[in-house]
Amino acid sequence: MKHIGTAVILSGPSGVGKSTVCSHLFKARPGIGFSVSCTTRSPRPGEVDGVAYHFLNKDEFQSKIEANAFLEWAEVHGNYYGTLKEEVKPIVMAGRDVILDIDVQGCRLVKTSCENDPVLRCSIISVFLVPPSLEVLERRLRGRGTETEEAILRRLGNARREMEAWREYDYVIVNDEAEEAARRLEAIIESSHLRTTVMDEEPWIK
Amino acid sequence: MKHIGTAVILSGPSGVGKSTVCSHLFKARPGIGFSVSCTTRSPRPGEVDGVAYHFLNKDEFQSKIEANAFLEWAEVHGNYYGTLKEEVKPIVMAGRDVILDIDVQGCRLVKTSCENDPVLRCSIISVFLVPPSLEVLERRLRGRGTETEEAILRRLGNARREMEAWREYDYVIVNDEAEEAARRLEAIIESSHLRTTVMDEEPWIK
Repeated sequence: MKHIGTAVILSGPSGVGKSTVCSHLFKARPGIGFSVSCTTRSPRPGEVDGVAYHFLNKDEFQSKIEANAFLEWAEVHGNYYGTLKEEVKPIVMAGRDVILDIDVQGCRLVKTSCENDPVLRCSIISVFLVPPSLEVLERRLRGRGTETEEAILRRLGNARREMEAWREYDYVIVNDEAEEAARRLEAIIESSHLRTTVMDEEPWIK
Repeated sequence: MKHIGTAVILSGPSGVGKSTVCSHLFKARPGIGFSVSCTTRSPRPGEVDGVAYHFLNKDEFQSKIEANAFLEWAEVHGNYYGTLKEEVKPIVMAGRDVILDIDVQGCRLVKTSCENDPVLRCSIISVFLVPPSLEVLERRLRGRGTETEEAILRRLGNARREMEAWREYDYVIVNDEAEEAARRLEAIIESSHLRTTVMDEEPWIK
């Protein structure tokens, strides 16, 4: 069945294990893409333009904002970050899936920016990855052993605030075990391909 | 995660293979229930009340219609058939899933009858099972070898008309291979449990 691919907004607090879940997912489904964001920050040594990020200067970024070219964008510590519609749309139109690593605020912006785009609107689903509890998240953050007490407490406070937005998402996955969480994400993506809203043919009536 | 179970409306034209797909599904997920309908027709030899059907007389059926107790009901050849809300609701409230074998017309009625029931409204999803093509359906109907040419043509005409309603459903599954179709139905059911709309707890914030 020909169908539009799925763009999965994947959000979750710092420390929840998003990248581990994604690496299990990509292993199980090598066809799934990961969108490359734009940024105005300078490339770090070894970062290739178009791989880690699309590196833009502030004027370029600003003109894309004005052209409504971003699915979502944000300013963080004086630098701009954003996901271009034209980065995502060709992928889903080819029937492929793509993961968008976007935060709660970005997810809200995506909904607005896609309102008038019939392809992106029906291709996007949103998934919130959460820990089994705040205690587990705290244990994971402490387990890294790389952060000060203050940084850990700040992250936990942010996580709690962020997680309050879970009802704005289509799906929630509790990351009790990364491989199992990836399997659930796979089921969500697979079922998304069977939605009537993303089918553009009806061979069964032919 | 505690969640409301899913009530799956499964529709599809005669001959598409619904019961084979369901038997694969029930084998893979023995916990899934199948709702028992009500009917005013007389029990056939061997049919036990409450197993094949709940057998009601016409007055009983009529008073349940007036009490808005049915998810959907229809009159077929002078007999009434219907699915009671109270048959489905306790199942999904216990977190279990249930398959509802309901046709296109019934599916439309379900949407109306659940409008004001917050539990049923969010627990119901609709899946349309279709053949890969009308030719395949014709081949399957002829393969049974039990029907007259006239009956086969009537079934095909009905199938074509019924299948035109596929966009009214949440999902379409093409039944090219029954076990694979059952696996897709499983993915739909699994993902339905992860919808934020059916979650009634948020332990990750505790």
